[in-house]
Amino acid sequence: MACGEFSLIARYFDRVRSTRRDVETGIGDDCALLSVAEKQLLAISTDTLVSGIHFLPDISPRDLGYKALAVNLSDLAAMGADPAWLTLAITLPEVDESWLEAFSDSLFEQLDYYDMQLIGGDTTRGPLAMTLGIHGLVPAGRALKRSGARAGDWIYITGTPGDSAAGLAILQDRLDVENPQQADYLVKRHLRPKPRVLHGQALRDLASSAIDLSDGLISDLGHILKASDCGARIMLDWLPYSDAVRDNVDPEQALRWALSGGEDYELCFTVPELNRGALDVAIGNLGVPFTCIGQVGPASEGLHFFEDGKPVTVDLKGYDHFASH
Amino acid sequence: MACGEFSLIARYFDRVRSTRRDVETGIGDDCALLSVAEKQLLAISTDTLVSGIHFLPDISPRDLGYKALAVNLSDLAAMGADPAWLTLAITLPEVDESWLEAFSDSLFEQLDYYDMQLIGGDTTRGPLAMTLGIHGLVPAGRALKRSGARAGDWIYITGTPGDSAAGLAILQDRLDVENPQQADYLVKRHLRPKPRVLHGQALRDLASSAIDLSDGLISDLGHILKASDCGARIMLDWLPYSDAVRDNVDPEQALRWALSGGEDYELCFTVPELNRGALDVAIGNLGVPFTCIGQVGPASEGLHFFEDGKPVTVDLKGYDHFASH
Repeated sequence: MACGEFSLIARYFDRVRSTRRDVETGIGDDCALLSVAEKQLLAISTDTLVSGIHFLPDISPRDLGYKALAVNLSDLAAMGADPAWLTLAITLPEVDESWLEAFSDSLFEQLDYYDMQLIGGDTTRGPLAMTLGIHGLVPAGRALKRSGARAGDWIYITGTPGDSAAGLAILQDRLDVENPQQADYLVKRHLRPKPRVLHGQALRDLASSAIDLSDGLISDLGHILKASDCGARIMLDWLPYSDAVRDNVDPEQALRWALSGGEDYELCFTVPELNRGALDVAIGNLGVPFTCIGQVGPASEGLHFFEDGKPVTVDLKGYDHFASH
Repeated sequence: MACGEFSLIARYFDRVRSTRRDVETGIGDDCALLSVAEKQLLAISTDTLVSGIHFLPDISPRDLGYKALAVNLSDLAAMGADPAWLTLAITLPEVDESWLEAFSDSLFEQLDYYDMQLIGGDTTRGPLAMTLGIHGLVPAGRALKRSGARAGDWIYITGTPGDSAAGLAILQDRLDVENPQQADYLVKRHLRPKPRVLHGQALRDLASSAIDLSDGLISDLGHILKASDCGARIMLDWLPYSDAVRDNVDPEQALRWALSGGEDYELCFTVPELNRGALDVAIGNLGVPFTCIGQVGPASEGLHFFEDGKPVTVDLKGYDHFASH
């Protein structure tokens, strides 16, 4: 249902750089036709990104092409799935060829990196927005679900939460970071989050549950606890911060960003005591720190926070939740 | 990435009425997890519908819920695939609960009818639009592709083309139909097109190619001819019209609507001479007429039109292509 001149947009997305063996028919028919190997499950996720809500209206097309795919890959990572195919439905206010070239170049670079193939989509005219449908594969019975956490399991996160919120604050002139390397690091963490695809795959047989940190640690961990019918104790003094946040952000703000800043696209996962020793072998060499931040408890205990071993109350009220939520 | 109050929308789409055996995990995790039976291929298609472009802004939510799914099912029908799963990413300007209830009721009625399951999605705030990702299954090697037509094959369509364009013209006060049954018939053909899912399945072993009529016969048949590297002769006097169109529409306008009105969501398919006899058995009892409208020729002949056996020129210029294209 491409309209008029808009069909020309299709050629920016019609270039097939990688051809996967499991794609029998890609773009160009009524449907794509795909084969799924025996004993593999298909993992599917869909995310919409709207200008001014999920990304700043002045974002560069290269950054947008990167991030749109990254946030969807993060959902696959959280299931432990291997990326496979993408559909892209994009709504554009006008045909801006240099914008389209930069956006699609960036998108295809990422697709190539993950050996993914664009298998279909749609282009329409309207306010800038896009919906990506991402498809991955995971061995049957080995997917990381939200519902597998058990009391006694340890809670881990990859990376350093709050970096993305700090990066956005820099872009919106709400945070001043003098050191240019640190400023650049934080902005990149917001614009170019790295989906933890390899971590997810390596955790398949070790973690009892997993989720990606899109809305913020409290909200996302809350989904695991609800799906698993558990509570949790979070040790605030165990939370890891990047040097850039530690050097430039007031500790209270850093804590808020770590707990509810969102868009870090790191993984939060739970690991039974028995598997803790194997973690280092599995994900210790992937170049990203991982940190134990607490322990799963019974549902009756709810979600509680501790500092230096003592219970504390976290007041997230008045937190200026940033524009994208 | 649902924002704030918008998470309440989720509950309208979170009701699982049907539970398919091949859905291991539906809504509620980072991804849905699905199994694909051996020797089945997955067929995937994505369509975006934007208010004012793909549907009239004052369309009823029930009609919209129906049509959004129907146009996507039509893509599966054109591949001969069995409908299986749906993802729905919907952007809404506001939370209007009565609208949501009517829209989702209508959507779920159709999902139930086709034994489909909603497996995921996303809700965001913005101008009314939606992107559906539809997933179907087709036995390996038996999908109906656009590329299989050969010179000598006969060209068929289901139903009576042009009805949808006439129905839209009534809705936009561009066509006056006195007979209320006929007016109702045409409007329904626009608002409630019937995806020819059973026809597609029945044609798997008979048709050499197929496509659904979304943009209009000339445009859509053109896709088959291009993909198959063929030309075609269309016999204009063989084109079937509904009584409602024949009684109320000027013949020249009826022809234009039949050839390029679009949105009929009927199937156009090609059948080798050898399989013509079997067509009646395969699709003769499905309650929808099917008509031979011409024959595939070599690519060098291009696409030509005939009337009473003589070549004619069809002038589609000046045609007021309706708002949705």
